Amino acid sequence: MIRIPPSALATFAAEALAAVGARRADAELTAEVLAAADLAGVDSHGVARLRRYVEGLRDGTIDGAAQLETVRDHGGVAVLDAHNGLGQPALCFAVDLAVGRARSHGVACVLVRRSNHIGIAGWYTERAARSGMFALVTTNATPQVAPVGAAHPMFGTDPLSYAVPTTGEPICFDAATSIVPRGKLERLHRERRPMLPGWVLGPDGQTSTDIPSVVAGLKSRAGYALLPLGGRGEEYGGHKGSGLALLAELLCGPLAGASWSAHTYGEDGADLGQFVLCMDIAAVGAAAVVVEQVDRLADELRGARAAQPGVPVRLPGDRRRRSAEERAANGIPLLPQVVEDLAKVAALTGVEPLVEPQDEHA
Amino acid sequence: MIRIPPSALATFAAEALAAVGARRADAELTAEVLAAADLAGVDSHGVARLRRYVEGLRDGTIDGAAQLETVRDHGGVAVLDAHNGLGQPALCFAVDLAVGRARSHGVACVLVRRSNHIGIAGWYTERAARSGMFALVTTNATPQVAPVGAAHPMFGTDPLSYAVPTTGEPICFDAATSIVPRGKLERLHRERRPMLPGWVLGPDGQTSTDIPSVVAGLKSRAGYALLPLGGRGEEYGGHKGSGLALLAELLCGPLAGASWSAHTYGEDGADLGQFVLCMDIAAVGAAAVVVEQVDRLADELRGARAAQPGVPVRLPGDRRRRSAEERAANGIPLLPQVVEDLAKVAALTGVEPLVEPQDEHA
Repeated sequence: MIRIPPSALATFAAEALAAVGARRADAELTAEVLAAADLAGVDSHGVARLRRYVEGLRDGTIDGAAQLETVRDHGGVAVLDAHNGLGQPALCFAVDLAVGRARSHGVACVLVRRSNHIGIAGWYTERAARSGMFALVTTNATPQVAPVGAAHPMFGTDPLSYAVPTTGEPICFDAATSIVPRGKLERLHRERRPMLPGWVLGPDGQTSTDIPSVVAGLKSRAGYALLPLGGRGEEYGGHKGSGLALLAELLCGPLAGASWSAHTYGEDGADLGQFVLCMDIAAVGAAAVVVEQVDRLADELRGARAAQPGVPVRLPGDRRRRSAEERAANGIPLLPQVVEDLAKVAALTGVEPLVEPQDEHA
Repeated sequence: MIRIPPSALATFAAEALAAVGARRADAELTAEVLAAADLAGVDSHGVARLRRYVEGLRDGTIDGAAQLETVRDHGGVAVLDAHNGLGQPALCFAVDLAVGRARSHGVACVLVRRSNHIGIAGWYTERAARSGMFALVTTNATPQVAPVGAAHPMFGTDPLSYAVPTTGEPICFDAATSIVPRGKLERLHRERRPMLPGWVLGPDGQTSTDIPSVVAGLKSRAGYALLPLGGRGEEYGGHKGSGLALLAELLCGPLAGASWSAHTYGEDGADLGQFVLCMDIAAVGAAAVVVEQVDRLADELRGARAAQPGVPVRLPGDRRRRSAEERAANGIPLLPQVVEDLAKVAALTGVEPLVEPQDEHA
């Protein structure tokens, strides 16, 4: 598989976004968040998304010139209207605002409405944690997940991310509230590997493992639904995963003044919502002492007796960090489909192609 | 099974707690929270706990005279030291403080250290939601859950609860971050019903369904561990449930300045931690509009096509509310074991017995 240095990928993405009307700073930030996902090994949220962003900016379903507006502002709480601009700069502004407000108030929440796709939620919480914050971020998304007891999708895969500083790298959790994201099914399908029972509800109301039908049916919204963490019924806690997705839907929909479920993408563009919570570590104790205690808990977990001998207990974020180290050194591998998409982006934007599809040797 | 009116149960519990040194107001509040769990059908967190509280107060492992102390106070953040007093009055004070601070700052967090068992977390979030707040509460607990990849318990069952106002009753989610709580296994065992594979890790590193050994082994901490939501490995998202338990452990342990895992109960009594977040609905929008949108989302969910025809989609809190209505009308059923415990409490405290064990007809 072809490999591209992350900086080249980010530069290409920024040029392409700027060429179709994103402000320079917004384009660079969005490119940085996309490249960070590729570095972290979350390929579904990396430059594989670039073509959709570029097409959205070109056809006006995303507004590259949108001005972020503060619509509510009361102490530690602010609500922003992204006016259908790119999600990354809107949410990054929201996080930085929350960090500043948490420094004054100890804690702050910033909610965003009329927003778009934000990439990986963990990028934002990790950013806040590096500023000494406990941070939590969530977003809603187009419906793909069936609430417990329902026969059709009403929730997004709605990731929850949190991060907390340590003396080293932050602990950073970032996970969809569904058992698996759609991207994982697409990858298994591409690699001709099987899926497991209990991940997806089929049109007959039973869980399906017929991966070609599942991938096609989820994409065309034809009767398939991802299942929430905990699965279909209550026996393994599906009501818990469903309740966690509902938490994201409530915070990012009604509370942010944004839309939800089938209402998220309308004639006026996107109306996704995001929620940011920052709590200043220095507000709950002497920051150095708090961080030392976080380290201690982390050390105890890493030192736990492993369920599989030789496979040490990992903390949230460990795997993404190892991927980032490897890919920073060796470049980011691009699937043939992504190489093709990037060539299309180059053609659409007039930006010099990063790589020619015919150069690709899998 | 014998049934007792909830008010009689609460009065008895309050008298008993006061008789062994709890301040009158603390005793009444603690009794109210216990009776609320019984009403809600969460029997494991109701008066079934009373004997342990009474014995703790008697032998000094819980301090009925403890004075709650504010140790940090910065804008929207406060940290309280419960000095090993009862958990219920400490957390209730924390919630009311957070509600007040959120009214001023839009959002507030209150963290509690050196605290004890708090009963059902949903009681506190629902209280805050009735004051117009979005509220989130979590607590840590004695270790019973194996983190993903670990062979032994390091996390508590660590409930997460949130609540949000509607024009009717609040939506109130309250669930352990393990697949099942220990109380459910004890109930199944008592009722001679089977447990499912994948809930509990046995001493051989495999998941066990041998319910007598599981119940005994979890109680004596002999090699058994509950599994986090999502199960043992990553195939069904065990890393997600484990990461959510870690969220509770971080907030309630290092960030609250409390202990965690095996350190929670030491020679100086309990050092559990709790975390409260309140965000004023009136800070994110016109409260009536926000609540109307919450209603709309709730209505859409209740109106979803049901996976099982005739079984409508439920929202978090619906089942507990129905139980409360039924039990308010018909009384709270008490298991023979609980009847015995309450007789023992009466004997220990000199409070007039609520019911004689020999009166009990199952």
